[in-house]
Amino acid sequence: MNYFSSDFKLGILGGGQLGKMLLFDTRKFDIQTYVLDPSDEAPSKIACNQFFKGDLMDYETVYNFGKQVDVLTFEIELVNLEALTQLENEGLKIYPSPKTLKGIQNKGVQKDFYAQHNIPTAPFARFENLENLKSAIVNQHSTINLPFVWKCTEFGYDGNGVKVIRQTSDLDNLPNVECIAETMIPFKNELAVIVCRNPSGEIKTYPVVEMEFHPEANQVEYVICPARIDEKVAQKARAIALNVSEKFNHVGLLAVEMFQTHDDEILVNEVAPRPHNSGHYSIEASYTSQFENHLRAILDLPLGNTDSKVAGIMVNLVGAEGFSGEVIYENIETILGWNGVTPHIYGKKQTRPFRKMGHVTIVNEDMAEARRIAEEVKNTIRVISKK
Amino acid sequence: MNYFSSDFKLGILGGGQLGKMLLFDTRKFDIQTYVLDPSDEAPSKIACNQFFKGDLMDYETVYNFGKQVDVLTFEIELVNLEALTQLENEGLKIYPSPKTLKGIQNKGVQKDFYAQHNIPTAPFARFENLENLKSAIVNQHSTINLPFVWKCTEFGYDGNGVKVIRQTSDLDNLPNVECIAETMIPFKNELAVIVCRNPSGEIKTYPVVEMEFHPEANQVEYVICPARIDEKVAQKARAIALNVSEKFNHVGLLAVEMFQTHDDEILVNEVAPRPHNSGHYSIEASYTSQFENHLRAILDLPLGNTDSKVAGIMVNLVGAEGFSGEVIYENIETILGWNGVTPHIYGKKQTRPFRKMGHVTIVNEDMAEARRIAEEVKNTIRVISKK
Repeated sequence: MNYFSSDFKLGILGGGQLGKMLLFDTRKFDIQTYVLDPSDEAPSKIACNQFFKGDLMDYETVYNFGKQVDVLTFEIELVNLEALTQLENEGLKIYPSPKTLKGIQNKGVQKDFYAQHNIPTAPFARFENLENLKSAIVNQHSTINLPFVWKCTEFGYDGNGVKVIRQTSDLDNLPNVECIAETMIPFKNELAVIVCRNPSGEIKTYPVVEMEFHPEANQVEYVICPARIDEKVAQKARAIALNVSEKFNHVGLLAVEMFQTHDDEILVNEVAPRPHNSGHYSIEASYTSQFENHLRAILDLPLGNTDSKVAGIMVNLVGAEGFSGEVIYENIETILGWNGVTPHIYGKKQTRPFRKMGHVTIVNEDMAEARRIAEEVKNTIRVISKK
Repeated sequence: MNYFSSDFKLGILGGGQLGKMLLFDTRKFDIQTYVLDPSDEAPSKIACNQFFKGDLMDYETVYNFGKQVDVLTFEIELVNLEALTQLENEGLKIYPSPKTLKGIQNKGVQKDFYAQHNIPTAPFARFENLENLKSAIVNQHSTINLPFVWKCTEFGYDGNGVKVIRQTSDLDNLPNVECIAETMIPFKNELAVIVCRNPSGEIKTYPVVEMEFHPEANQVEYVICPARIDEKVAQKARAIALNVSEKFNHVGLLAVEMFQTHDDEILVNEVAPRPHNSGHYSIEASYTSQFENHLRAILDLPLGNTDSKVAGIMVNLVGAEGFSGEVIYENIETILGWNGVTPHIYGKKQTRPFRKMGHVTIVNEDMAEARRIAEEVKNTIRVISKK
């Protein structure tokens, strides 16, 4: 198959920032892209060859889009699975496969999958709806002890649909949907490993990254590569991530989020079958970015080197509280003056509190120096709006 | 001035591969771009915000384009200088300035400039036309001795308009245009230094790169960063490049091509006031690519770190002899399997012998290993056409 400057068409479901960054590499290789997204202001709109506006959850829309391309991928899990399944049955190459996505889209199914394949994960129980969960607690159902973590199984995103339940009253006002109750695991570190795998079975992992949380606010502040952990633990985490990818028979990128417990046990939290926030550092720090490797993987090309050239840290740029409207990146000129600092602006014209507007990567030969600069970046740039 | 996700418009004259690579960074920063190019198939067409088809040498076309943007730059020197001068007189920010371009566009003027500012360069004589040069030789004009290098002063490109004259008959069939006769300098190395400078006067140089030539064919095969030369010579080359940039009062990128003579003298050959082929390695090897630094410079933002993370070598992908038509990148899948190899496909659908179709960057911690892989790349990939 000739992909380069040819008539080949890659379809991408979703035109957000992940798609936008993927397009840097389709452009670099001059591979034609069709993008489907519901928004006229999708960050991917400009750099693709053909942009289609439409609902990613609508069967007809996704099906008709898929019929126009040679290979189909997605940058978001919330897409119409039935349409993908039908397209795959009709012979379209879809990576990751809808079969894989089906095992991931629903967190209950995903957790069952780990249990069935002896992949270490936190103990949990599934419930058809909130009422069943409540009665299970009332009836002292053995597997559930307070405190626990409530997660709705579908359509949760960026922390939505997750809540720590310390007393039964915390369940009040939660939606009455399918959910799981997961044992709360005290952990030392939250880690992630990105795996890439192509249809021929070539498979590679990126180094383990570490999510550093704000001491008070329970919010990731820095994604740090490589994680500042023991090499044995890192090897174990990469081995588990490889195993998860192979068990899913996954093609493309799989981001595996994990907990490192206090006794250095590794538990899989959840996975994302696409380029991931925890891999953004790779654009500047790695020999091959996660986006280029996703592209190589789904086109069954050889995978690129996942090693790092230098230490990398990523800081998310989210809308500051109390600001809504036309975005301003306060002090961006200041941070541009610092060594190894690269802002990525996703192209959303309007900011809202906590909206993901971009990220900043800090690279340096010396991790401690990168960490110092990252903290200055975090404390200097602000995503606000025009007064 | 707020550039990021704002109404600010950057105009770029020329939509070729240099413009295309510059657009990766305007997209990364979400800076709006307008591009003017004569071709409907310009590599920059897709990723800019607005594409305009038009003649870059036409006064009206360039003037009207310039009136629509806030800052104007160019990726090719062959643009209508009068229109730029008028736009600048009317207050438009144009970087590099038409005043600078004027001193560079004509090689005779450029050589005079070096002479006036005591910038070391090969001895030369200027002639209004070929006839004057011929009669100067006939009349034994003292400054011209065979062999010498004939260069037409305008519209020369990629070796066009340059010829080594060993006997007077070599002048036959050359165009009767303004030209210079330059003393042939035997040299050890051909070097280049890219300088970036912003309007505030912040100035930085990239490391010295070395053009390695094919032993027989007089053709650059590899651009190697850093150049494998003595550190003292490298420092001298960077100092001379800095001086050239400051004397031109240049803003943006200035690529300074130089000869290293056998007694380690540095002579300036010529300059290009734009991103340059000799800086393509920087996308993968440098902390800040030449394209991002061009953008930072013309927007008067702080300049990024020009140091390298790893050794970088660039191999040009030019159309193979005997092939014309729809392009095929033979064995590109093979080289993608090698460590640190990144092809850049410019997006030209049709190949022709020697047409610049793309380049490949090879990066590695170890220069010798990068050089070994670069040679394999050179011997493996071929730019051919469908049979």
